Amino acid sequence: MRKIITEFIGTFFLVMGAALGGGLGAGLALMVMVYAGGHISGAHYNPAVSLAVWIRGKLTGGDLLGYWMSQVAGALAAALVVSYVFKQAGGGTCAIPDGAIVQGLVAELIGTFALAYVVLNVATAKGNSGNSFYGLAIGGTVVTMATVIGKYSGGAYNPAVAIGLCIQKSLCWSQIWIYLVGCFGGGLLAGLVFKLNNPDDK
Amino acid sequence: MRKIITEFIGTFFLVMGAALGGGLGAGLALMVMVYAGGHISGAHYNPAVSLAVWIRGKLTGGDLLGYWMSQVAGALAAALVVSYVFKQAGGGTCAIPDGAIVQGLVAELIGTFALAYVVLNVATAKGNSGNSFYGLAIGGTVVTMATVIGKYSGGAYNPAVAIGLCIQKSLCWSQIWIYLVGCFGGGLLAGLVFKLNNPDDK
Amino acid sequence: MRKIITEFIGTFFLVMGAALGGGLGAGLALMVMVYAGGHISGAHYNPAVSLAVWIRGKLTGGDLLGYWMSQVAGALAAALVVSYVFKQAGGGTCAIPDGAIVQGLVAELIGTFALAYVVLNVATAKGNSGNSFYGLAIGGTVVTMATVIGKYSGGAYNPAVAIGLCIQKSLCWSQIWIYLVGCFGGGLLAGLVFKLNNPDDK
Amino acid sequence: MRKIITEFIGTFFLVMGAALGGGLGAGLALMVMVYAGGHISGAHYNPAVSLAVWIRGKLTGGDLLGYWMSQVAGALAAALVVSYVFKQAGGGTCAIPDGAIVQGLVAELIGTFALAYVVLNVATAKGNSGNSFYGLAIGGTVVTMATVIGKYSGGAYNPAVAIGLCIQKSLCWSQIWIYLVGCFGGGLLAGLVFKLNNPDDK
Repeated sequence: MRKIITEFIGTFFLVMGAALGGGLGAGLALMVMVYAGGHISGAHYNPAVSLAVWIRGKLTGGDLLGYWMSQVAGALAAALVVSYVFKQAGGGTCAIPDGAIVQGLVAELIGTFALAYVVLNVATAKGNSGNSFYGLAIGGTVVTMATVIGKYSGGAYNPAVAIGLCIQKSLCWSQIWIYLVGCFGGGLLAGLVFKLNNPDDK
Repeated sequence: MRKIITEFIGTFFLVMGAALGGGLGAGLALMVMVYAGGHISGAHYNPAVSLAVWIRGKLTGGDLLGYWMSQVAGALAAALVVSYVFKQAGGGTCAIPDGAIVQGLVAELIGTFALAYVVLNVATAKGNSGNSFYGLAIGGTVVTMATVIGKYSGGAYNPAVAIGLCIQKSLCWSQIWIYLVGCFGGGLLAGLVFKLNNPDDK
Repeated sequence: MRKIITEFIGTFFLVMGAALGGGLGAGLALMVMVYAGGHISGAHYNPAVSLAVWIRGKLTGGDLLGYWMSQVAGALAAALVVSYVFKQAGGGTCAIPDGAIVQGLVAELIGTFALAYVVLNVATAKGNSGNSFYGLAIGGTVVTMATVIGKYSGGAYNPAVAIGLCIQKSLCWSQIWIYLVGCFGGGLLAGLVFKLNNPDDK
Repeated sequence: MRKIITEFIGTFFLVMGAALGGGLGAGLALMVMVYAGGHISGAHYNPAVSLAVWIRGKLTGGDLLGYWMSQVAGALAAALVVSYVFKQAGGGTCAIPDGAIVQGLVAELIGTFALAYVVLNVATAKGNSGNSFYGLAIGGTVVTMATVIGKYSGGAYNPAVAIGLCIQKSLCWSQIWIYLVGCFGGGLLAGLVFKLNNPDDK
């Protein structure tokens, strides 16, 4: 239950950061919330990262479901606060142009791969235990990807962020499949690459 | 006495940063002063954070009063230096529009909750003892909140900053209650959430 | 093989960052990928840094060749993704004006010296073992040099980045010698300075 | 001799950063060079910081003189490279308006006090030994002060930077006394405050 509450709070601030502060707001919010919650839940705040950690063997199937529900609930809460308290509902237009679906999908896939690859290495690898840089690296990856390829997809790299931004209408529901396929695909790929490249790190 | 002097110096630079450098100046000043003073006083520089640490049981009632007085004195000193040495007194206009009091109050409440929640976790939790990231996380939270929701309240997240900016006339006295209620409310909430979520961390 | 894959992934993201995000994108990508891969390969992602580490005695000759090939392959992959997936091929114009070849060469030499000097000290010196700041320092050096002297050469400080940007046509092949001479010269110089200044650090 | 070379290299990059990259360039350069050289010389790169460390009792009188000479030599080298290689000599105009000498002097005093206070606490205090944040805190202080009060004096906070910028003509010789008095005064004050506030930390 401690983990579920921590994932809820962290995802709430991450989605609020994405909705009102763009890539920089999301990355900064992720950094500080990873440092705040890492010692309790591992601080995923991202269903695709939780998938990668489950593939890598550091999360049980039951926890995976609990994390996913908590992350989506945090995203929903943030979307409601942004829309109805701060009155910043978006216009509901899609972030990815019709002629650039491939670019949007690849951007979400590459960005989420980078994020999950960094998380698995800095926060779950034996060779990095006890470090103080994990939040900087994880939040920094979101800022990096938003800076480098953010314009191709709006820069979610996180199914919960994508769902939250659809509710808040900064993204559109008709393109949610691009984010779900791209983000879970990126997380899956990162989990497999980590396992292949670190066979002795159980 | 060492703690009182440390809180005075840190709050002085924090309020000067907020008055002359906005959210980024405040967050950066907080980060460096947290690293400089953390080993002496815990580096709160914020009456709402001190309240949260007292609720969490890591500050005595006597220290709480001493910290508060020192923090307000540091804010006063900074306001005087900014106003009379650097001659940057504000116009005394209120930061929160009349029709957006709720948004301003909620922004201060959420922002201060985030700040105190991060402080309690990164600087007082057993699971994070000896880390090197606490200043980055704490200063980063102010930059995050200023970036994400700063426009709704001017972004104090700290009663001493709010008082200092009222003296220096970047904020107005008629709205000071919003900052006091929002900030102390956010600190109180963070203290309760931490205790509930970390019952074994005394 | 684990090291080769790690160098490939890191250099891929570094070159994509440089091509689509400039000096800031490159420095941020380097920071996060250094933290992700440092525990496996040392996280050079840069043939001139690998040269400096080889001179310093922390990389075998065989590994040096493997690292170089992997880094160039990562750069090639990034250039192809940027050019053909994201359709951001450059115009192929040279970054260094004809009358400012000396400035461009010195900028690459100084910038790469700084980068390799920082890497050798933060990531290979005995006195700094077990630190958590190496990625911040290394990525920060690229951001620093791009901010300070980036305009004189486009700011590669890395032969693999220069080659990748020539393929992607943000730089031009006719000036590739400037980057190769400047970068390898800077790495060589840093290796020698480190050995001279740290004779007891084998 | 190792320390002298390290101070030379670090001050060279710091002054080049200040001349060509402003407060951000100087702060970033300082951060990375503090991380690179801290384990060898303590990484002052600043005569006023060396004075503060000498007052605090962590530098011998002989080393103080050697550090000062090396720092000024590094500043001179940087000024020459910036002026004659990169051809960026300034116009020699003074940074502080005639009617604002007091503000300029106080800004240098406060800024250098903050910098030396942070250095003494993060890099020499027993309670912070072995941390990984010292470079971030020290470089961050220069960025903070440049952001907050940089406009009142041009933001040197360092006699070697002031001398280098006078040679390179971004500052003017007729105001060098303001920087020398302000910076050494700030360093002196920080040394005294540290000793008073940390009597048991020898």
